[in-house]
Amino acid sequence: MSYTRTDRKPEEFRNLKMTTGFISSADGSVLIEMGRTRVICNATLLPKVPDWLAGRGTGWITAEYSLLPQSTGKRVERERKGASGRTQEIQRLVGRSLRGAADLAALGENAIVVDCDVIEADGGTRTASIIGGFVALAIAVKKIKERLGITQQILKHGITAISVGVVDGNPLCDLCYVEDSAADVDMNVVMQDAKNFIEVQGTGEHASFDRAMLNTLLDLGENACKEIYKKQMELIGGELP
Amino acid sequence: MSYTRTDRKPEEFRNLKMTTGFISSADGSVLIEMGRTRVICNATLLPKVPDWLAGRGTGWITAEYSLLPQSTGKRVERERKGASGRTQEIQRLVGRSLRGAADLAALGENAIVVDCDVIEADGGTRTASIIGGFVALAIAVKKIKERLGITQQILKHGITAISVGVVDGNPLCDLCYVEDSAADVDMNVVMQDAKNFIEVQGTGEHASFDRAMLNTLLDLGENACKEIYKKQMELIGGELP
Amino acid sequence: MSYTRTDRKPEEFRNLKMTTGFISSADGSVLIEMGRTRVICNATLLPKVPDWLAGRGTGWITAEYSLLPQSTGKRVERERKGASGRTQEIQRLVGRSLRGAADLAALGENAIVVDCDVIEADGGTRTASIIGGFVALAIAVKKIKERLGITQQILKHGITAISVGVVDGNPLCDLCYVEDSAADVDMNVVMQDAKNFIEVQGTGEHASFDRAMLNTLLDLGENACKEIYKKQMELIGGELP
Amino acid sequence: MSYTRTDRKPEEFRNLKMTTGFISSADGSVLIEMGRTRVICNATLLPKVPDWLAGRGTGWITAEYSLLPQSTGKRVERERKGASGRTQEIQRLVGRSLRGAADLAALGENAIVVDCDVIEADGGTRTASIIGGFVALAIAVKKIKERLGITQQILKHGITAISVGVVDGNPLCDLCYVEDSAADVDMNVVMQDAKNFIEVQGTGEHASFDRAMLNTLLDLGENACKEIYKKQMELIGGELP
Amino acid sequence: MSYTRTDRKPEEFRNLKMTTGFISSADGSVLIEMGRTRVICNATLLPKVPDWLAGRGTGWITAEYSLLPQSTGKRVERERKGASGRTQEIQRLVGRSLRGAADLAALGENAIVVDCDVIEADGGTRTASIIGGFVALAIAVKKIKERLGITQQILKHGITAISVGVVDGNPLCDLCYVEDSAADVDMNVVMQDAKNFIEVQGTGEHASFDRAMLNTLLDLGENACKEIYKKQMELIGGELP
Amino acid sequence: MSYTRTDRKPEEFRNLKMTTGFISSADGSVLIEMGRTRVICNATLLPKVPDWLAGRGTGWITAEYSLLPQSTGKRVERERKGASGRTQEIQRLVGRSLRGAADLAALGENAIVVDCDVIEADGGTRTASIIGGFVALAIAVKKIKERLGITQQILKHGITAISVGVVDGNPLCDLCYVEDSAADVDMNVVMQDAKNFIEVQGTGEHASFDRAMLNTLLDLGENACKEIYKKQMELIGGELP
Repeated sequence: MSYTRTDRKPEEFRNLKMTTGFISSADGSVLIEMGRTRVICNATLLPKVPDWLAGRGTGWITAEYSLLPQSTGKRVERERKGASGRTQEIQRLVGRSLRGAADLAALGENAIVVDCDVIEADGGTRTASIIGGFVALAIAVKKIKERLGITQQILKHGITAISVGVVDGNPLCDLCYVEDSAADVDMNVVMQDAKNFIEVQGTGEHASFDRAMLNTLLDLGENACKEIYKKQMELIGGELP
Repeated sequence: MSYTRTDRKPEEFRNLKMTTGFISSADGSVLIEMGRTRVICNATLLPKVPDWLAGRGTGWITAEYSLLPQSTGKRVERERKGASGRTQEIQRLVGRSLRGAADLAALGENAIVVDCDVIEADGGTRTASIIGGFVALAIAVKKIKERLGITQQILKHGITAISVGVVDGNPLCDLCYVEDSAADVDMNVVMQDAKNFIEVQGTGEHASFDRAMLNTLLDLGENACKEIYKKQMELIGGELP
Repeated sequence: MSYTRTDRKPEEFRNLKMTTGFISSADGSVLIEMGRTRVICNATLLPKVPDWLAGRGTGWITAEYSLLPQSTGKRVERERKGASGRTQEIQRLVGRSLRGAADLAALGENAIVVDCDVIEADGGTRTASIIGGFVALAIAVKKIKERLGITQQILKHGITAISVGVVDGNPLCDLCYVEDSAADVDMNVVMQDAKNFIEVQGTGEHASFDRAMLNTLLDLGENACKEIYKKQMELIGGELP
Repeated sequence: MSYTRTDRKPEEFRNLKMTTGFISSADGSVLIEMGRTRVICNATLLPKVPDWLAGRGTGWITAEYSLLPQSTGKRVERERKGASGRTQEIQRLVGRSLRGAADLAALGENAIVVDCDVIEADGGTRTASIIGGFVALAIAVKKIKERLGITQQILKHGITAISVGVVDGNPLCDLCYVEDSAADVDMNVVMQDAKNFIEVQGTGEHASFDRAMLNTLLDLGENACKEIYKKQMELIGGELP
Repeated sequence: MSYTRTDRKPEEFRNLKMTTGFISSADGSVLIEMGRTRVICNATLLPKVPDWLAGRGTGWITAEYSLLPQSTGKRVERERKGASGRTQEIQRLVGRSLRGAADLAALGENAIVVDCDVIEADGGTRTASIIGGFVALAIAVKKIKERLGITQQILKHGITAISVGVVDGNPLCDLCYVEDSAADVDMNVVMQDAKNFIEVQGTGEHASFDRAMLNTLLDLGENACKEIYKKQMELIGGELP
Repeated sequence: MSYTRTDRKPEEFRNLKMTTGFISSADGSVLIEMGRTRVICNATLLPKVPDWLAGRGTGWITAEYSLLPQSTGKRVERERKGASGRTQEIQRLVGRSLRGAADLAALGENAIVVDCDVIEADGGTRTASIIGGFVALAIAVKKIKERLGITQQILKHGITAISVGVVDGNPLCDLCYVEDSAADVDMNVVMQDAKNFIEVQGTGEHASFDRAMLNTLLDLGENACKEIYKKQMELIGGELP
């Protein structure tokens, strides 16, 4: 397939908009829009930590992910017989990434869940979930600290993510659905404070990739993360709670 | 409990707003807001009718209903081990109500699903799903008729619904969550063309009700349906497809 | 479809027979026969109240409903992968109706389940379950009070139910399966002490209904409930335990 | 535990009563009562043979087994999350035993299911299911042959079953629940034409057993089967369909 | 089918080899090979007894059984939607048989599970599981006694098992898969100390069997158990822990 | 935690042994041992391609992964209520990696499953599954080509994998369980022909990592893959089928 991106430069990510306070009953709530991709990210304090963690004096952060049936072009079934492998893999990635922000011991024996509900899907839903999920988490943590009387800093790092990939030989940043479907290589990069990696997941779907291409993709990812990170920090007032 | 509604009159329903075209990939899509209750209603053509209907030359309309975990004040679990009894009961009600609009034979062997995803729940989610779901259905039917080359009228009636109830002895229209929780009697009314009933479901949760109260509640419901019906018809251009 | 009932008058319910003590190991057991419809209703004390109620000093009454595979003309599958939507809807209705009889606080922290197992189904199985279930419940409560040393009155009301509907334009009481399948309107009425309503569920399956027809149906229902209520009270010795 | 049976001799089985035509909509229906144990056995033609058998020109006979929740002294949960190991083991035994009656090729590509629903359980429910199930099967086969125009003999053998066991050192025939709970050895015997075995399942629950005891138990079983077989044959008119 | 066994005498069992210590992390681990049938048997102390046994001061022994997908000639599906009826029946048999070895009270409130994972299946997998499972159990009990400081004898008996059957009229010991598939009668015999029975399960799959044949099969079984029992006892050092 | 590897150099992988023909009934079967980690890899032709692929004239390769309960130090539950998120993630990785070897169109409409059953787990089970799974796949493809009369080359590439990570600041190759548990960074590298990447999955479990460390880890991975690749190619006779 011969493909050239025409609506933006290869290294650009799509128009990014985050609306905070989207759902009033969540501790932290963000509607993130990244091009046509839209995800509601809600962070909420749970009544208790998972059983396996009880009694250790430390907290937990987890994530759930779901697609509305009509979020994609072709309607998907609700996952009422259990989350699919893809859903579980994304939930694990988002949860792990967000835990990379926190000092779980400072959270005490409390658990926070970040629900990421995709209402429209046009590629990059897992990285949008991490970007918006981090902001929702930060807003929630601020409220929760007050409510629980915690004074220590809980979030030590900002977490940013972006998808990069290779389409028709060209390295691209922030793939939309059409690009993602045609990609030879697909990579998700999750960064801490836009400096270090906490997750690099590159997959050659239809082709392998060499060390040089890997480096090009990582460069694209780092640059996008730096910009997105600024927007996230602005939204949470420049300070990690 | 002694309760008096202060923000509107007993016979009034909450501020009602419907945004069409909310999700671009659905055949018909409406975001309905009724006070703080918000539901995304998407109507979509399915690839085929249910197995039990195949070969009869007639169509089907069904509904699915789901709460986002953080839509209510207290986070609810995702229904990944099967829909709860409450969810199934609501889905059956919404689907049955919307079928009351249609000449299923005119639809041919085609099936439409109306997904009702509650993003914020403040009472009356099932009646909001019917109101918004009908508008989404009408918009979708218009498109589907063109796509499939159907010329017959498929929707013969407008479908409207409202909840009414008794709180602290007072009959009220369109109960919000706080009122619903305190209600002695709870009733859902679904009307065809704002004239006849197609569903009356009254339940004495904490008290029984006599014939006189039943009639008062039905009056409240009829009047609200008449007004809401006008808003629905405006949105779909005054003509049933 | 042109239909005239020939075996009884429109306002009559079918031959009603209740056999108490049907299953010896239940606290209360009734075999109810209503025409060819037969349901075994067993009421039993459970070891504990549901978790969400624990510690509040109040009790609970719930119901379960099941069809034997060969109870209907066409064999139905056992519900071994979860109760269907229809089953759950009926269980919720029967349980809610029977709770309308009781002062749950007087029951203390005890739970009673009423199992309704349909061995032959010829229409009206949910209302037969409520009629027979109430008698089984009353018999069980008498025994349970002695066993637990409760002296307060637990059952404050008698609960009766009947189905009514419209077939070929004619309002009919107590529809058998053939009538139910052909009904344009189907309504279940549950009454407290044969005086007030605790549940009115009317559905226009194939037609809508106006206020006048609704009133006619409610009249039919009320009259039937008054007669059935007498039979129930005789069986439990005229006194609510 | 020291136990002596007082209500009947060690070699006697309990009072046995079979009522045919119990459920009118089944092809063959028997209510079997064996002492206080009561099982409804319904045999029905299924719409098709199992997939793995399709196209081989031969039929199938299967069985399902279920306990009503209140059938036993202590209420059992409905098996709505799948049949338990015990239930599946019994279903497999009953189905296998009944297939031992039939020439499945003569049945053509047709399947019969025998539903065994225990409404009261006082020991020996699986053998009662086989005894009553065989009679229901024979009645159903007669009707099915006429309906399908099959003229060949389908049932070639009568199937009878009984439980035997050792309680407090004493070999007993047809154990009731109290005896079964106290049994050291428990054995089910299924016979063809009351002459040969098609199933012998002996288990030392709390003790082992030697060859002599095994022989004594088999004698008890054979004698009981001979008498029960006569009753079964009378009910089906002395001739195998 | 006309079948004559050519590779060994009718009364002989296949080449039997047991390798102890196969999995280093299990308390007791045996790879049993019986002809081409191979089963890994691992016995492990569980963290607690089942809930229904808690607080009675006595222990429990249970078994789990599974086939690797490619263990049989035709690949079988993993049982990820619940264990099949066959699997549950085998697990119950193996568990019951192994409990026949033990004084559960002497075990204290501890539970042991014996996992039997079939890596290659050529008939007789359930009896191989019992033979190898007993040896794994004995090795594990020795270790567990030391770890928990129990001095009483826990295993009072040796448990041995073998399959026997009738193929083409000939009674055979230890059927391989080809023989098992062609068998008219199939019987599993489980013995205590190679003297008494604790389980006899004979099934006429395609034919019934008379008393004489039953006796012949039991003789075959007893003789094989006596030999196998010696091999088991050697492996565990001649002494029951 | 302060950790220094003492049994081998940081850049060395553990002793690697692959036994072909381990299960006789599989098309390709390999027991791979990598230190104490042992996995049975069986490749088998399935009767048909997945439904979504049917009719496209192209084939499919998939993988399943399972842990024996006692494979790890602490017994894990069998996944009988569905595969866990971890299991599904691994299965997807192994399947995707092995598809990277093949020209699926050359395979025709045929599907191959590679079952990876871990009998002992000491870290690196997913990469061992890929290494052994590739060899089993290659052996199976050779047989399948003959059986199906395919003459085209199906496998175009060799697939190799290794885990690398950072423990106590030190980059290490092929982590055993103890190292894996203590790792700050954990990375799996899957390579095509030991030259290009088809999967890079790096996770900062307890720490982030910078670009320099990422490069060091990739170097470790590449070198190990080159050596392992040689061993794999030797086993399959140096030629890709």
